[in-house]
Amino acid sequence: TTEHQHLRYNPLRDSWVLVSAHRMKRPWAGQVEKPPEEHIPKYDPKNPLCPRNTRANGQVNPDYDSTFLFENDFPALQPDAPDPGEDQHPLFQTRAARGICKVMCFHPWSDVTLPLMKMQEIVKVVEKWVEILEELGATYPWVQIFENKGAMMGCSNPHPHCQVWASNFLPNEPALSDRCQRNYYQKHGEPLLLEYARQEAERKVWHSHSSWLIYSKKWVEWSQQVLVYIFFLMFNLYSLKPFQFTDDRSSVKNRSRCLLFMYSPTGPHLKEDNSHWQLHAHYYPPLLRSGTVKKFMVGYEMLAQEQRDLTPEQAAEKLRNLPDQHYKTREN
Amino acid sequence: TTEHQHLRYNPLRDSWVLVSAHRMKRPWAGQVEKPPEEHIPKYDPKNPLCPRNTRANGQVNPDYDSTFLFENDFPALQPDAPDPGEDQHPLFQTRAARGICKVMCFHPWSDVTLPLMKMQEIVKVVEKWVEILEELGATYPWVQIFENKGAMMGCSNPHPHCQVWASNFLPNEPALSDRCQRNYYQKHGEPLLLEYARQEAERKVWHSHSSWLIYSKKWVEWSQQVLVYIFFLMFNLYSLKPFQFTDDRSSVKNRSRCLLFMYSPTGPHLKEDNSHWQLHAHYYPPLLRSGTVKKFMVGYEMLAQEQRDLTPEQAAEKLRNLPDQHYKTREN
Ligand SMILES: O=P(O)(O)O[C@H]1O[C@H](CO)[C@@H](O)[C@H](O)[C@H]1O
Ligand SMILES: O=P(O)(O)O[C@H]1O[C@H](CO)[C@@H](O)[C@H](O)[C@H]1O
Repeated sequence: TTEHQHLRYNPLRDSWVLVSAHRMKRPWAGQVEKPPEEHIPKYDPKNPLCPRNTRANGQVNPDYDSTFLFENDFPALQPDAPDPGEDQHPLFQTRAARGICKVMCFHPWSDVTLPLMKMQEIVKVVEKWVEILEELGATYPWVQIFENKGAMMGCSNPHPHCQVWASNFLPNEPALSDRCQRNYYQKHGEPLLLEYARQEAERKVWHSHSSWLIYSKKWVEWSQQVLVYIFFLMFNLYSLKPFQFTDDRSSVKNRSRCLLFMYSPTGPHLKEDNSHWQLHAHYYPPLLRSGTVKKFMVGYEMLAQEQRDLTPEQAAEKLRNLPDQHYKTREN
Repeated sequence: TTEHQHLRYNPLRDSWVLVSAHRMKRPWAGQVEKPPEEHIPKYDPKNPLCPRNTRANGQVNPDYDSTFLFENDFPALQPDAPDPGEDQHPLFQTRAARGICKVMCFHPWSDVTLPLMKMQEIVKVVEKWVEILEELGATYPWVQIFENKGAMMGCSNPHPHCQVWASNFLPNEPALSDRCQRNYYQKHGEPLLLEYARQEAERKVWHSHSSWLIYSKKWVEWSQQVLVYIFFLMFNLYSLKPFQFTDDRSSVKNRSRCLLFMYSPTGPHLKEDNSHWQLHAHYYPPLLRSGTVKKFMVGYEMLAQEQRDLTPEQAAEKLRNLPDQHYKTREN
């Protein structure tokens, strides 16, 4: 299955991915991206995310020395949006969308990223995530925490930060993943993601990365209040989702331009039976062909089916062979 | 509904789009793209798609003077891929994927695009599409014809061309759209897309563009053999899919970096009852915030829900106000 194209089932989306391994061989004359900016100043007086600076709405940031959470100045979701009114026609349905968008800086310095931060600094970030989940998740049915990392991935600011979008509706993707997990649980009597993790361990597919499973213990304690326990599914999900990761400089702890997502039911869903659901995080490496060429998810992918040019096994092999240390901290 | 965020139902995907109109107001300090290349030579001796040139596999292109169809030298689908073998576990399912990938040049010159071609040249392209659909569609259950236009959209060659990926499986997206159309038909006794077109006409949402409906007549004749009749749904679909279109230089006939897709059931599906299905094309304008800034479909969009910063009405208004003539042929 590493040599020839085939379809792989994605049980979290009940859909299929076309894997065409040999496509990586083709020449590339298309768009080439700039490599990520290497020389970002610790402090930039013009960056609205830095401590003490003034943001677009005139507010001045505190002189924060750890994480800093504030409301997005240009939110996609606001708490008071009016109801668009009812259109009775089934093809023209609309619904009110209400919610809140926040931004959370990870660190006062612009020149660090999560992997470059000290362990106790990272713990502060994770504790804050749990706090946000608990606070907003008390009422909102969905709290999406995610990091768009790097300009190539639509991030508009180099300062280390994530976003929080809480909504009064369950968005399409978590709704789908909830349905898939529920169906699996009803049929097999055990959570899909736990069985998946067990199988991966048995099959030793991601053996060298099973250390992620160890981290999960810590999460269990932090997240008891959200009724499910956390399990870091990062590497498992690599095999379920199309992606490219061929930036040779990058190590496991060094994902430039990656996407980080937290998945957990909240709000009214907390009163339901969540036996089927596993709290998990989606950690997408950049969609790359090489360090500077994107894997474009365009024509075929947008309107036919997800397609990837590298098998999960090839990707895992690449990841396994990368040094553990971040390239920025390695001696040359 | 143009001022405040709300959800809109997408009946072709049975999912919702978050529309947050006011987000366009925010400043942008992220990635800016190069504008599309304006000075492409008619003939480039190094371009593998030009007449008489040699491709990567050593084959020499004919001196074609209209369309030119050939097999993709780096196909994502090949007719003879082996079966990956059966994994009995429901979470680790794989399937054989077989098919064929072709490339079709629209014109011998590299410096034209569909809107710049003469009507009889465009007709040749459309006739070829129908021919391909009939030929590959005789056996393959799905024939995806699509154009990735422009480097920003992952197109690796400026020469005007489209791709054809025919597969032995129904990909996820058409499978979903088939299911939605089928359910609607069963419930309401009429095709979803026909009712949609009727409603749009009645509501006069796309009034100024109803000329597209006129074109559809021609398609009816061409496509009788494929058992359904074609209806150009271009503008209707604008209201169903997230997109950005704010390149002021562009007119309706001048979509740089757009995506064109043909949707039609084929192969074994032709023996089924297709009363619910409308042959249609998806014509996606570029995902843009402005002429050079993409609308990034990243963190929230990839793992929560499609989100757009412009309502379909605002987009329609922009389109309506554009000149009919292509900017390259306008006198300055
Ligand atoms: O075949 P091409 O033009 O090299 O490839 C392009 O279209 C394909 C189908 O949408 C995508 O999979 C590629 O990522 C994109 O770059
Ligand atoms: O809020 P930002 O960082 O300006 O915006 C970024 O993330 C959003 C959520 O994924 C996307 O909708 C935008 O397209 C992207 O540029």
